[in-house]
Amino acid sequence: MTSLHDTAVRGFASDNYSGVHPEVLAAIAAANEGHQISYGEDVYTERLQEVFAAHLGDGVEAYPVFNGTGANVVGLQSMLPRWGAVIAASTAHINVDEGGAPERVAGIKILNVPAEDGKLTPELIDREAWGWGDEHRAQPLVVSITQSTELGTLYSVEELRAIADHVHERGMRLHMDGARIANAAASLGLPLRAFTRDVGVDVLSFGGTKNGAMIGEAIVVLNPEASAGLTYLRKLDMQLSSKMRFVSAQLIALLDGDLWLRNASHANAMAQRLRTGIEAGLADGTIRGVAFTQPTQANGVFATLPAGVADRLRQSFRFYDWDAARREVRWMCSFDTTEDDIDAFVAAIARETSA
Amino acid sequence: MTSLHDTAVRGFASDNYSGVHPEVLAAIAAANEGHQISYGEDVYTERLQEVFAAHLGDGVEAYPVFNGTGANVVGLQSMLPRWGAVIAASTAHINVDEGGAPERVAGIKILNVPAEDGKLTPELIDREAWGWGDEHRAQPLVVSITQSTELGTLYSVEELRAIADHVHERGMRLHMDGARIANAAASLGLPLRAFTRDVGVDVLSFGGTKNGAMIGEAIVVLNPEASAGLTYLRKLDMQLSSKMRFVSAQLIALLDGDLWLRNASHANAMAQRLRTGIEAGLADGTIRGVAFTQPTQANGVFATLPAGVADRLRQSFRFYDWDAARREVRWMCSFDTTEDDIDAFVAAIARETSA
Amino acid sequence: MTSLHDTAVRGFASDNYSGVHPEVLAAIAAANEGHQISYGEDVYTERLQEVFAAHLGDGVEAYPVFNGTGANVVGLQSMLPRWGAVIAASTAHINVDEGGAPERVAGIKILNVPAEDGKLTPELIDREAWGWGDEHRAQPLVVSITQSTELGTLYSVEELRAIADHVHERGMRLHMDGARIANAAASLGLPLRAFTRDVGVDVLSFGGTKNGAMIGEAIVVLNPEASAGLTYLRKLDMQLSSKMRFVSAQLIALLDGDLWLRNASHANAMAQRLRTGIEAGLADGTIRGVAFTQPTQANGVFATLPAGVADRLRQSFRFYDWDAARREVRWMCSFDTTEDDIDAFVAAIARETSA
Amino acid sequence: MTSLHDTAVRGFASDNYSGVHPEVLAAIAAANEGHQISYGEDVYTERLQEVFAAHLGDGVEAYPVFNGTGANVVGLQSMLPRWGAVIAASTAHINVDEGGAPERVAGIKILNVPAEDGKLTPELIDREAWGWGDEHRAQPLVVSITQSTELGTLYSVEELRAIADHVHERGMRLHMDGARIANAAASLGLPLRAFTRDVGVDVLSFGGTKNGAMIGEAIVVLNPEASAGLTYLRKLDMQLSSKMRFVSAQLIALLDGDLWLRNASHANAMAQRLRTGIEAGLADGTIRGVAFTQPTQANGVFATLPAGVADRLRQSFRFYDWDAARREVRWMCSFDTTEDDIDAFVAAIARETSA
Repeated sequence: MTSLHDTAVRGFASDNYSGVHPEVLAAIAAANEGHQISYGEDVYTERLQEVFAAHLGDGVEAYPVFNGTGANVVGLQSMLPRWGAVIAASTAHINVDEGGAPERVAGIKILNVPAEDGKLTPELIDREAWGWGDEHRAQPLVVSITQSTELGTLYSVEELRAIADHVHERGMRLHMDGARIANAAASLGLPLRAFTRDVGVDVLSFGGTKNGAMIGEAIVVLNPEASAGLTYLRKLDMQLSSKMRFVSAQLIALLDGDLWLRNASHANAMAQRLRTGIEAGLADGTIRGVAFTQPTQANGVFATLPAGVADRLRQSFRFYDWDAARREVRWMCSFDTTEDDIDAFVAAIARETSA
Repeated sequence: MTSLHDTAVRGFASDNYSGVHPEVLAAIAAANEGHQISYGEDVYTERLQEVFAAHLGDGVEAYPVFNGTGANVVGLQSMLPRWGAVIAASTAHINVDEGGAPERVAGIKILNVPAEDGKLTPELIDREAWGWGDEHRAQPLVVSITQSTELGTLYSVEELRAIADHVHERGMRLHMDGARIANAAASLGLPLRAFTRDVGVDVLSFGGTKNGAMIGEAIVVLNPEASAGLTYLRKLDMQLSSKMRFVSAQLIALLDGDLWLRNASHANAMAQRLRTGIEAGLADGTIRGVAFTQPTQANGVFATLPAGVADRLRQSFRFYDWDAARREVRWMCSFDTTEDDIDAFVAAIARETSA
Repeated sequence: MTSLHDTAVRGFASDNYSGVHPEVLAAIAAANEGHQISYGEDVYTERLQEVFAAHLGDGVEAYPVFNGTGANVVGLQSMLPRWGAVIAASTAHINVDEGGAPERVAGIKILNVPAEDGKLTPELIDREAWGWGDEHRAQPLVVSITQSTELGTLYSVEELRAIADHVHERGMRLHMDGARIANAAASLGLPLRAFTRDVGVDVLSFGGTKNGAMIGEAIVVLNPEASAGLTYLRKLDMQLSSKMRFVSAQLIALLDGDLWLRNASHANAMAQRLRTGIEAGLADGTIRGVAFTQPTQANGVFATLPAGVADRLRQSFRFYDWDAARREVRWMCSFDTTEDDIDAFVAAIARETSA
Repeated sequence: MTSLHDTAVRGFASDNYSGVHPEVLAAIAAANEGHQISYGEDVYTERLQEVFAAHLGDGVEAYPVFNGTGANVVGLQSMLPRWGAVIAASTAHINVDEGGAPERVAGIKILNVPAEDGKLTPELIDREAWGWGDEHRAQPLVVSITQSTELGTLYSVEELRAIADHVHERGMRLHMDGARIANAAASLGLPLRAFTRDVGVDVLSFGGTKNGAMIGEAIVVLNPEASAGLTYLRKLDMQLSSKMRFVSAQLIALLDGDLWLRNASHANAMAQRLRTGIEAGLADGTIRGVAFTQPTQANGVFATLPAGVADRLRQSFRFYDWDAARREVRWMCSFDTTEDDIDAFVAAIARETSA
């Protein structure tokens, strides 16, 4: 098969519009040939345990799965009895972007709380953290946060610890959706462990796909007491890969070395370059009417545009509306975004807003 | 990442112990770089529609998914109302090997019928095909058959047509689990269409993984009237790949050309070589006490062994017990099984049974 | 069996703390003896269809069920494909008081919208009525409203019509949770039909239990095009009564005549008497520090109390906190609440607040 | 409401075609009036605990529910993790007559085993009791038996103990569907405890409806270690009655005294009278061509009839085909079946078969 697409075209629609990092492809090839036990008893999945332990400490358990929805739903299900509920921000991926998978596949009630910047706080959690023992109320037993968030923002270590303590004091568990956890690590400048296990996260969805993998995420149990039955649940929830060595190899390629961090750091830097470029344009008047709606703390930039600008820009650069009603757009950077991509885009923004 | 395993070791445990065919890996690489719309709006998934249409005719719809369980469960769910049931052989993968996914994820009741050779017949179907309109009975609205079966056997075109007619006359639909459909095509010597769409199969689970792909299956709707809501169901059942181009590219690599058939024909030939080799040994007395329990019509050989033989063989060759109580084993051949593998295994069987 | 409780004690905790109206008990006795076909093919269930038709017009279909959660969940499930979502007020019983049954049993995502007075509006609905065709979003296909609401408020006919039109214009359907629909009818002074079928409600949960029945609700399909498979769903959701004649007889007792309206009118009148009594006390200074938080339009009164008063009152009268943080309580009146009950309670409020 | 049906007509279709025993109706009336806490905190439900303890010993927990499907499904769900499966006879009500509720509502896989007389044995259980720890297999963790069975047969105490021991030795739990447990007790001549808790049954579905109640069953936990979360599960599975006092009162009426045993003994005696009457007719030639297909050990008689006889009999007496293909019918007796009913029916059988 030959390539069917123009490999030089990139945009700002999503970090999952990008392809696979060459080192990940190479790892897949290295894992090929010969026979390996299927369904996770291969040496790559075994090795992956060590790789995760090197990052997160002894005793963690990593369960490779296919996608982020799978990681979130299976992980959460393993943390909850059938009567459990999850407190999450209204903007959480599990609440708005998984087609109801948590509810339909796992029978999980999501108790969502509005959060302007996509971040929960102890106060926001308390809006739904009540009613334990009352059978009429879906029991809030897990809090799920996203790091970095769906709005490109970031929890600090202090914020995370405050949440974890608050959650644990109430007998609940803490889940982290880490679809973009590498971006968080790069932005915080901290080891993975420092803002996950060390602050009290119990179960983590570790994201590979948005950071240069092809198909590959993992449920990482940081606190084995907080999760039960994952081998069974992964299978019955249809997230068990037969040739798992190829999923694990991708994650090893990212994590056994610094590829995960290089990719994420680059994507973050490109988002900063985009923001800085626009800010400079706004300062010198070459760009007009663009306003940022969120801090840029990871690899996404959120902004409002003058009327008509988004559509004109989209003739050359792909990206999504975030909230069409207020003309808010989202621009995502990826491991393969180039400085030239950013500079060309900033120039286009200048052209379209100064017209 | 370097290879962590001995790439020269192969066995007979399962066709999913094998790796990825080099042409499939090449296709993944060819689909890489640049940005493509995620979640299936990429050009590879678009092209895949044409590839399937070339095999199965205009109007078919292919939905790439991650694994066989996903293909079966999502496909069946799209064919059934919430009160539907599926008639299947007791040995069907959906009944015994999916951890209850059909029941738990899709709420599907499976009405299973014992079938010695893994094949349903109109008579066997009728044991459960009754009770329509009675709300106390899970409504039998779909029949699911596996081609080639979990027991290495094959439905003939005539048998399939008889089943399809029988099923349709009763207002039911026909689903085919084609995890090893390529092996069936190779064995029948027929185009895919001749024993699927043309005989009346409504929805097909098309298997790639066991036939040289890495992660890649597809739900193929042959009769659009028989299926509803697949785009939604695939998402909510957590089978929607974000970077779908790489799943589709694998299936294109198999199907746009004859790789699918070459792989399957080879695997089948290796199974025949294994059977023939053992039969010759039995005839000339160099092998003793081995008895075949199923015809060898695809890529699996089922046999009973003298006491102790299986465990001794397994010191050098990996394979599974099928029914330990009767000392029945299953030997699966794959696209990468070599003639030398077979010959060495036959020699080992001779050595262990004549001792 | 003799009575084990003091039959003279009544309170304001809930309309389901009350017992069964004597005419309902008499109807149960009248339906007794002899054999009747089970599971709904009895003459009482047949008669019930006529009784509902007399109220709501020809072509409606009534499905007796056990309880309100069952009526809501089974009814909503019959209106939705597996990918459907329901827009409801945050305060809706289906969102907060059914233990996650909609999510867990029926796989329904609830898109909830804060509503101060428990009432949706077209504007509030629009906060969640978007994203059709996007498989990542649970599809908003039904709006559910409660009449009278969980906060004792009432939709006017005009408000209902505006909602129904808005909902239908967007291709959605309208569900009404009528656990207290009789109280609504009594308060509006309108026939049931005028504010249900005639304004465009598609499926109704008709409540009997809170209005003098023992165990008895009904899903009433007003628009048969909006609901499918109810006979199957009622069974598989475990809401099918074998001796259904006794459920139907209760509903006949209420509806074939004016018992439903007498009971509800009385309960409403008692709530008004309570409110009026307190208002009088506030006016003449015998009651202090009580503030109403909702209009009293049905049989419930919501108010905030001075610190400590609720607990002191509860030594003699049972009732629930509604929002303990703001000292808000709920007082419910029932068909069996007496004028003396109210007067004694008002006197107690005066005593406790003027102390 | 006046009676709408002929209260003198009875048949042999089902024990749930009958009405309510007058003592049960009286108990409902005695529980009426005044207010009682809803959802199970009433004095009748409290008293019911003592009544069950008197029968079954200290430490048992009874959870009233609406119907038998609810009792079975909620009870089983409380015994199983999400990956659990239940081994049951193919003829079990949970397998054939609950519309798929166990699968759909509770996500339970049923591993069914053919059993000629409706009774499992250790050997039959072993056909499906394997594969623990294998995530591909729904985990067999509970065995469910029905006492008396759906085929009118009975487990002896010895048979039950052998099953319970076998089940427990394998780390599984034992569930008993006791929809007709009173008939079993009457037939065995033993206290309830002797063939439930004392032999090792862990969770029991106690049936009231078929034995003279109106709407009333209970999940009875005999071994609290075998069940978790029942209060939550009963609510979320929509089996929680608001005015529970009336469900509990029915069960008290049956069990606090000997009404349960009187009713069941009478129904059993009527089945014996029917069988004896037919046997006498066969012996003296007044009845021809009737053959019994099961022992008559409870309140049901199963027999095959000459062609045409069933339909002719049904002109006067209602009953169901059991297996139409072999002309097998089921005749059920109830607490309200009279000797005259039986004698008239035997006479009709004689008339129709000797013609």
